Amino acid sequence: MTADDTRAKVEQAYERFMKLSSAIGHCYSAKCILDWDMNTMLPESGSGARAEVVACLGGIAHEKATSPEYEQVLMELLAFVARREGSLLDPTRAAVVRKASRAFARQRKLSSAFVERRDALCADAHLVWSKAREASDWNAFLPTLEKIIAVKREEAELVGYNESPYDALLDEYEPGMTTRSVSAMLGTIVPRLADLLRRIQASSVRPVAWAQTVSIDAARQKFFNERIAARLGFDFTAGRLDASAHPFTSRMHPGDVRITTRYKEDDVLYALMSTVHEVGHGLYEQGIPHTHYGTIAGEAPSLGIHESQSRLWENIVARSRPFASFLVKESRALGFEIDPEQLYATLSSVAPSCIRTEADEVTYNLHIAIRFEIERDLIEGTLQAKDVPQVWNQKMREYLGVTPPDHAHGALQDVHWSAGLIGYFPTYTLGNLYASQLYAAVLRDVSGVQARFHEGEFGDLLAWLRTHVHEHGGLKDSAEIVRDATGSAPDAKYFLEYIERKYRELYKL
Amino acid sequence: MTADDTRAKVEQAYERFMKLSSAIGHCYSAKCILDWDMNTMLPESGSGARAEVVACLGGIAHEKATSPEYEQVLMELLAFVARREGSLLDPTRAAVVRKASRAFARQRKLSSAFVERRDALCADAHLVWSKAREASDWNAFLPTLEKIIAVKREEAELVGYNESPYDALLDEYEPGMTTRSVSAMLGTIVPRLADLLRRIQASSVRPVAWAQTVSIDAARQKFFNERIAARLGFDFTAGRLDASAHPFTSRMHPGDVRITTRYKEDDVLYALMSTVHEVGHGLYEQGIPHTHYGTIAGEAPSLGIHESQSRLWENIVARSRPFASFLVKESRALGFEIDPEQLYATLSSVAPSCIRTEADEVTYNLHIAIRFEIERDLIEGTLQAKDVPQVWNQKMREYLGVTPPDHAHGALQDVHWSAGLIGYFPTYTLGNLYASQLYAAVLRDVSGVQARFHEGEFGDLLAWLRTHVHEHGGLKDSAEIVRDATGSAPDAKYFLEYIERKYRELYKL
Repeated sequence: MTADDTRAKVEQAYERFMKLSSAIGHCYSAKCILDWDMNTMLPESGSGARAEVVACLGGIAHEKATSPEYEQVLMELLAFVARREGSLLDPTRAAVVRKASRAFARQRKLSSAFVERRDALCADAHLVWSKAREASDWNAFLPTLEKIIAVKREEAELVGYNESPYDALLDEYEPGMTTRSVSAMLGTIVPRLADLLRRIQASSVRPVAWAQTVSIDAARQKFFNERIAARLGFDFTAGRLDASAHPFTSRMHPGDVRITTRYKEDDVLYALMSTVHEVGHGLYEQGIPHTHYGTIAGEAPSLGIHESQSRLWENIVARSRPFASFLVKESRALGFEIDPEQLYATLSSVAPSCIRTEADEVTYNLHIAIRFEIERDLIEGTLQAKDVPQVWNQKMREYLGVTPPDHAHGALQDVHWSAGLIGYFPTYTLGNLYASQLYAAVLRDVSGVQARFHEGEFGDLLAWLRTHVHEHGGLKDSAEIVRDATGSAPDAKYFLEYIERKYRELYKL
Repeated sequence: MTADDTRAKVEQAYERFMKLSSAIGHCYSAKCILDWDMNTMLPESGSGARAEVVACLGGIAHEKATSPEYEQVLMELLAFVARREGSLLDPTRAAVVRKASRAFARQRKLSSAFVERRDALCADAHLVWSKAREASDWNAFLPTLEKIIAVKREEAELVGYNESPYDALLDEYEPGMTTRSVSAMLGTIVPRLADLLRRIQASSVRPVAWAQTVSIDAARQKFFNERIAARLGFDFTAGRLDASAHPFTSRMHPGDVRITTRYKEDDVLYALMSTVHEVGHGLYEQGIPHTHYGTIAGEAPSLGIHESQSRLWENIVARSRPFASFLVKESRALGFEIDPEQLYATLSSVAPSCIRTEADEVTYNLHIAIRFEIERDLIEGTLQAKDVPQVWNQKMREYLGVTPPDHAHGALQDVHWSAGLIGYFPTYTLGNLYASQLYAAVLRDVSGVQARFHEGEFGDLLAWLRTHVHEHGGLKDSAEIVRDATGSAPDAKYFLEYIERKYRELYKL
């Protein structure tokens, strides 16, 4: 073959690959829209048939993503990438192919029968868990959890691992993360956070918080939340904000990124902080270039990096004094007059509690440490599911000094295990760590960035994130993104510096 | 084979058929949700990618609906139906199989590639049309319309026809309807309507209409519309009401039927009459038994029958004196005080205008006649798309005595052509005809039914429609439904009697 022939062959193969990838992407897009609709719009009587439609589409997508046709073109392209005399694909395309092959290899290790069995188990588990939580009845959930642990251990064996079966599960959400690396990360921050918490609790300083005194209906709050989201940079010509029981972000496909929140009439901050969190996810998705839609390059490289964006906006930006001062001005449209320092104190107050999703910045990662240790031990087989509540409560006392009043406020509180999401929790802490490290680089690179938050100007921050994080899509892995953006490998010290500086000042430690 | 063996074989084949049918149904459900979302929720920038996702799903559905596997089981079942010694399937299942085979035969004539190309074209066309209409710019839409005409002519050739290619398109929406039969139908009613219109215009009687004097925002109107929809029998645990530019009804799958309307702050009747129209469609969909979901028996047999339900509620029920009196009471919740006779006169006033969707009962079918003649000529190739506006305006003057001020109020007003819905308009007139005939039977069968509308009681009417129309799903064709429900074959005389009696009285002719 002449060089021209080869080039044409590569070009054709890549085109075929992109066509198959788009079709897979379209199926996942469709499923994503159906899921979104199920959580925001679906009338009650439609849920039975909807579950079947969603499962059917999931099956079609998986079938396409593991088809022999797709495998063949991937292998063909991989051969071009791996040629001794140099890749025949440009570096971007070569990266896309390499990443797609890795994802494919993982998918292929799981048979359709296994995926179907696992997904059916988790689909049924949701209702079991939600009833068990309502009744605060651990034993009602136990047999289901045991089955889920068994199927996730089976998954780990099928996927393969070096040291711990839990590695295989972590890798799904944060490629490259291991049980060892998570232990090291938590081993660094947990003692420092526990110490900070003790000093806060011992402090005589108690910042004066703000209490909402009038009720504001959901429609007015929605208007307010949309306004703030738009000020942060969320593009409503390419997205929406709706209400759902549990807030989430969905990227349907390029040009359509949707976030949700939920409202309490007597607590505007409840909706607002959720909205800001989801805006962080949403800005990321809106910033990923459309070019690689359908391929792995069109997606965030990991959940940790995704979470770094939501945490950065929710915690570092929105729980800051400049943001409080911006919010005070904006709140006048809702008929409020708030003292900015009180607002800041409210958003930054520290108080150990039983519920992770309501935890403050200091205690949040302690909740994660507990979940990590328990799920690691469950997967490694050193802890039995029946003993989880006892271990949970003991660790809560040890790390946070609180005892859950019941299982609903203890080991039954999170949806994750029932959904088969084991190995997912550590990405929340990783997100906090990445966020602090990225933000330290923003402060270094963009002078006066924080001062402009007072006036509701967030464009400089967003521009930096676009350039250093969003625009790379899935072409870099998370460690590369952090290193290239900040100049150093991921390191917990930035988070510790941020949190200790902030809370020392606030509680005058 | 023993009789038992054969019975088991039939049972197995039917089960296989139902499994494949459900999967096809799920794909169409998913597409339906995506379409609904596109018209109600989708942010602007998402439309490009969405068109691709919709087209991809349409392709998958079509592929499944024309797969060799599905064909094989259909043929197997058809053989059982057609056995000389009597069908081995019960009459319901036999009807399902016969109808599914007919639909399959039509579908098979269109390749997946063709369907995907056609659907992608139409999905893109929507935005082009809506921008062209906004700018009232025919030339902006023309190249797209030309492509749509070409693809629909191609479709007609693929499907096949006896006399006119337009027959092949009509048959999709109203099985058995032909260019000839539509011409005959319109030939019967158009002169009588034109004559009635002339006499109305010559009459010195002008019923006093009601004019809304205060503005009512969309949120309050939505509440009011939902209340009226519920009073008519629409089940909100299995449905929704949302806003869209062009009102429509979607049945996603059992338990999820969605209607839309649109609002004008200074005209509550504008939204309300649309809502009642869509409620008619929605009640029908909610009344079709869930058992045959996925098969042709789970769908209305034709658009004409579907439209008969919306027209019956919108025109015959809602433009009646008893309904006006009910509405007057309900309107007090919105802070109105209306005279019922004025309300009736408003809803029943006759005035030729340019916009079909705002047309009164007398002139409405004249709008349809114009569209029918134009699309028939476009498909038969005797009219060029570039000449449509000129022909349109000329026919408007001839039939209705009005001249559109611009294309937005002329040939660009309707969404149908941009969506590839050619051959669809005549079903609106057919719906009017069926509605009158069905309603005459309701008055014969249910004494005092109309009087109870005063009190907002519509249950008797709905029960009759459930029994005689809705519950048959697609098991009977439209002519059978009309004949079995009314005792006579479909006949335009009921419509002419209804409309002439009503307007003679109102205008004292």
